[in-house]
Amino acid sequence: MTIYYNNVYINNTSCVTGPYEKKGPLGNYFDKSYKDLYMGEKSFEKGEIKLVKDSLNILLKKNKLDKDNIDLIVGGDLLNQITASTYGSVGIGDFIGIYGACSSSVLGMIIISNFIEGGFINRGISLVSSHNMTSEKQFRYPTEYGAPRPLSSTFTATGAACCLLSNKKSSVRVESATLGRIVDYNQNDPNDMGRVMAPSAIDTLLRHFKDTGRDPNYYDLILTGDLGKYGIEIVKDYLDKEHNIMLSNYNDCGCLLYDLEKQKDVHAGGSGPVCSALVVFSYIYNLLKKKKIKRVLFLATGALFSPLLLYQKENINSICHAISLEAV
Amino acid sequence: MTIYYNNVYINNTSCVTGPYEKKGPLGNYFDKSYKDLYMGEKSFEKGEIKLVKDSLNILLKKNKLDKDNIDLIVGGDLLNQITASTYGSVGIGDFIGIYGACSSSVLGMIIISNFIEGGFINRGISLVSSHNMTSEKQFRYPTEYGAPRPLSSTFTATGAACCLLSNKKSSVRVESATLGRIVDYNQNDPNDMGRVMAPSAIDTLLRHFKDTGRDPNYYDLILTGDLGKYGIEIVKDYLDKEHNIMLSNYNDCGCLLYDLEKQKDVHAGGSGPVCSALVVFSYIYNLLKKKKIKRVLFLATGALFSPLLLYQKENINSICHAISLEAV
Repeated sequence: MTIYYNNVYINNTSCVTGPYEKKGPLGNYFDKSYKDLYMGEKSFEKGEIKLVKDSLNILLKKNKLDKDNIDLIVGGDLLNQITASTYGSVGIGDFIGIYGACSSSVLGMIIISNFIEGGFINRGISLVSSHNMTSEKQFRYPTEYGAPRPLSSTFTATGAACCLLSNKKSSVRVESATLGRIVDYNQNDPNDMGRVMAPSAIDTLLRHFKDTGRDPNYYDLILTGDLGKYGIEIVKDYLDKEHNIMLSNYNDCGCLLYDLEKQKDVHAGGSGPVCSALVVFSYIYNLLKKKKIKRVLFLATGALFSPLLLYQKENINSICHAISLEAV
Repeated sequence: MTIYYNNVYINNTSCVTGPYEKKGPLGNYFDKSYKDLYMGEKSFEKGEIKLVKDSLNILLKKNKLDKDNIDLIVGGDLLNQITASTYGSVGIGDFIGIYGACSSSVLGMIIISNFIEGGFINRGISLVSSHNMTSEKQFRYPTEYGAPRPLSSTFTATGAACCLLSNKKSSVRVESATLGRIVDYNQNDPNDMGRVMAPSAIDTLLRHFKDTGRDPNYYDLILTGDLGKYGIEIVKDYLDKEHNIMLSNYNDCGCLLYDLEKQKDVHAGGSGPVCSALVVFSYIYNLLKKKKIKRVLFLATGALFSPLLLYQKENINSICHAISLEAV
């Protein structure tokens, strides 16, 4: 389903990262970056919680807002029980916890946009985080094991990012959104998330075009997150061959956060809920604010990957939520 | 924040359970119950997914709806990556994944109510599940270990439950809702969830009274889920002593799902996202439909319990979302 908005604006964003994201091509856009992966805390998980707290505090400070001015936080991350979001949000306003894996940033933006457009709240924050070490250890192998990663694997980004949405006019608005569906495309390689998620990106993109009557040329930029350099090719090929749709103005957040030539460790690209949020809430948001691009369709893809169900021979399903952003 | 609705109705519900819930005092209210905990599947997790699929199918059948008639499912459960909800919902409409632990049923109802009241959708399903074996193994000990459970512990209910909300008039409406906040009350006993969650129930109840100007007598029944028989006393005592509020029309879903005298294994009561949903979507919904009670405040409490963060000496936080239901 596609929903249209007349009254929802991005007022500001905040991005806090680890060291590897800072070294990437977008490093200068971030509000704060840490030099190591502990963020001065005693565990990686507590480091991730610190990132969340930082990103919330920076956002409030930037906008001279007190925590009492925030009607709602919608937050999610990759940790079991979305602990980074919940521990990082104690004491700040009403809270909705979501789980959409790497699609969480857009899912949060859609829920808040509906609440604002419906007149239920004035102001809400979409919050996401991920941390390379907490998530590799939870979903694959602790890095200390030294397990080799295939070239199709992506690299979970470290950071937290917030987007402040409200009914207060600004230079970037949320124009419409298309909610995702759970797609089972018979995929089961936990080291090839681009292949797992490409079908859901295609599904949501086609439904968005159908619902709105638009084609790719309507947008200055169509951006998936985080399919990586192989996943992006699946989307292009499939749309070209099966639907005769050529995507020329298309890129992927997983290919933008890092320099894939120089930062070779990331293999196929960046991933994690914060990867696409870091790209869109910094670089893309700036392009929109400066009117260098006017219309962006941001499709956040999430692999609903359960290690336990994979051991039980189930597939890895995926979902993709899309949001259309416009320079005003 | 408290939101009021004029246009949101409960059209129907569905409840599927395991054997132990069937043997409880509400057994006759459920649509379907299984005789063992595998539900004919090869693992407990697949059993829980089966429960979710069953509850969705039963709800659609009861209402002569096709899956294409459902605009939105909002689903959550206790499994890491909310796998029961996502695997069980493949191919049925747009999907929003939430994590609110045992508060998920009400959180889902609030999101859907806002989407309906805002005019974005006509019809949505709030979906929750839990399974005694999948959750004990994930959060505490596999039952086979034979670890003794203290009397303050609760018993995770097995089942899945759905609530169909729409703008189509029916005999029960959603009148208002108060969103929860994350509460850290310095609790850290994973075997005493009543104590962990009571503070968030009190927090949301007091905010609901403050926002609405109501007192306990406004409601025929105030119902928390799932504090159990000790948690319920904390709520009563605290409100009496600190706020001079006497709760006489108050009960807890954890004390209603099982017969605490005869089903002694449950110790302090039932728990899990499905526990309060099974009580409210069956017995309470029936009382409202028959106008035996007219106004119910349902406060679903969730312990945001992360075993990993508990090992790292962090507290267990909690959240409570409330919804007011009215016979029309």
